[in-house]
Amino acid sequence: MNDLNAFVTRSPRELRMAFRDGSLDLTTSGLAPDYVQANLVALPAEFAFDFLLFCQRNPRPCPLVEVLEAGDTEPKSALGADLRTDLPRYRVWRNGELVEEATDARTAWRDDMVSFLIGCSFSFEAALLAANIPVRHIECSCNVPMYRTTLRCIPAGRFSGPLVVSMRPIPGPLVAAAVQISAQMPHAHGAPVHVGDAAALGIRDLGDPDYGDPVPIGDGDVPVFWACGVTPQAVVVASRVPLAITHSPGRMFITDRRNDYYTSRGLQSDLPAPH
Amino acid sequence: MNDLNAFVTRSPRELRMAFRDGSLDLTTSGLAPDYVQANLVALPAEFAFDFLLFCQRNPRPCPLVEVLEAGDTEPKSALGADLRTDLPRYRVWRNGELVEEATDARTAWRDDMVSFLIGCSFSFEAALLAANIPVRHIECSCNVPMYRTTLRCIPAGRFSGPLVVSMRPIPGPLVAAAVQISAQMPHAHGAPVHVGDAAALGIRDLGDPDYGDPVPIGDGDVPVFWACGVTPQAVVVASRVPLAITHSPGRMFITDRRNDYYTSRGLQSDLPAPH
Repeated sequence: MNDLNAFVTRSPRELRMAFRDGSLDLTTSGLAPDYVQANLVALPAEFAFDFLLFCQRNPRPCPLVEVLEAGDTEPKSALGADLRTDLPRYRVWRNGELVEEATDARTAWRDDMVSFLIGCSFSFEAALLAANIPVRHIECSCNVPMYRTTLRCIPAGRFSGPLVVSMRPIPGPLVAAAVQISAQMPHAHGAPVHVGDAAALGIRDLGDPDYGDPVPIGDGDVPVFWACGVTPQAVVVASRVPLAITHSPGRMFITDRRNDYYTSRGLQSDLPAPH
Repeated sequence: MNDLNAFVTRSPRELRMAFRDGSLDLTTSGLAPDYVQANLVALPAEFAFDFLLFCQRNPRPCPLVEVLEAGDTEPKSALGADLRTDLPRYRVWRNGELVEEATDARTAWRDDMVSFLIGCSFSFEAALLAANIPVRHIECSCNVPMYRTTLRCIPAGRFSGPLVVSMRPIPGPLVAAAVQISAQMPHAHGAPVHVGDAAALGIRDLGDPDYGDPVPIGDGDVPVFWACGVTPQAVVVASRVPLAITHSPGRMFITDRRNDYYTSRGLQSDLPAPH
């Protein structure tokens, strides 16, 4: 536990180097809490337009932090990093089947891979906690519950599938604050997609999530549902592309970009730079 | 003038049909003012990923209203429309050279074209006027002045180039309102990229714009600069792609989507639909 506390104070770069040399393999929840973490999806160039179009059409589940050019493995959001080695753990998918988990993706990587870094809910969970809004699955030290819904993502080319949501029980008086805080973080899935009745999303039993762990819903808690970063991974798998490399669940890429870089469009994070 | 007033009250569909049958060819400024209008850039599929990536990286000059799949010409934002015929006038570019202006793009169109609909400032100008903020070039019945700046867009693949801005002189007491109103319309270039000193953008003489017409700056007016939809067209031309089809300046595609559809992310315009 002393060791884990030591990890929390490490910089994104220090953590990435520890992941690179294989000395560390753990979930990144709570690590470098001020920094944007990202889901990784890497695909052969042939599939890149369709997948980028899918993300463009579905920004809630697939908020793009950065898209690299074909063959590029060093993100602008983490100069000096290498996406093939600097995550704790990877999953390699062939024709929609999981064929390998590894702490290094160089063997499976192809020269024409296009890497997509997609925002993750760790960013807004830190913001909720900072506003004294309880996050039940963190209180329980378990994973957030996630559910396949009957909402369909907007298809793009070869990619289609259902929206996957995460659920956090929020005390009724704090729901409005949770909405406003997460709405300010579109890079981390933004505002909830639904508040209240799970059946409206086609979810039969909140106690039986499709991914992650069930979480108790306290008296006065309201289920609040956010679009989830599992969506793009599920969609890529369902499309049976010949090769996809993703992060392993919970083991994200940690960027050098602070969460407040994106807090709102008002910060003009998306402006061109001077010559 | 009676005729022009008659056009203003026509629906987007009625206007598109008149453009399609060739009975109407005029700038679309002021037409169907409640509806989103869009710049058109259509490119062969081979260039689609790079250009979509360019738009993703440069959302101020290139806010995507819709991207169609390769070969598709009927936008979701205007069902029944045909992008090859339903704009007033087109420009056809080969290897970066303007080779043709036409009211029908079917002859130049290729089966693998990918069409990008990019937001336009007409939407926020209507919102400024509705808030009693004067728009000087409309008062003068001339075109908005536009300038190439020394800000570089973030390159993507084969596409790169300078940011082009439009300038509107705004009375000092109304600048804050103009910022807030346009910031609520990210689909129409969003908040200004710069307020005040033109030299900071590398603009030598506001009276000598690179595109459009000069506009007088009144006593107490402050120059306010917005990212401009000419940027993507200039970038496509500079890249010398073998074929590009765009709208002719000021002659936009008129969608069936109301401006308030996009007013803010809070409206959840980007959510997946039920089964």
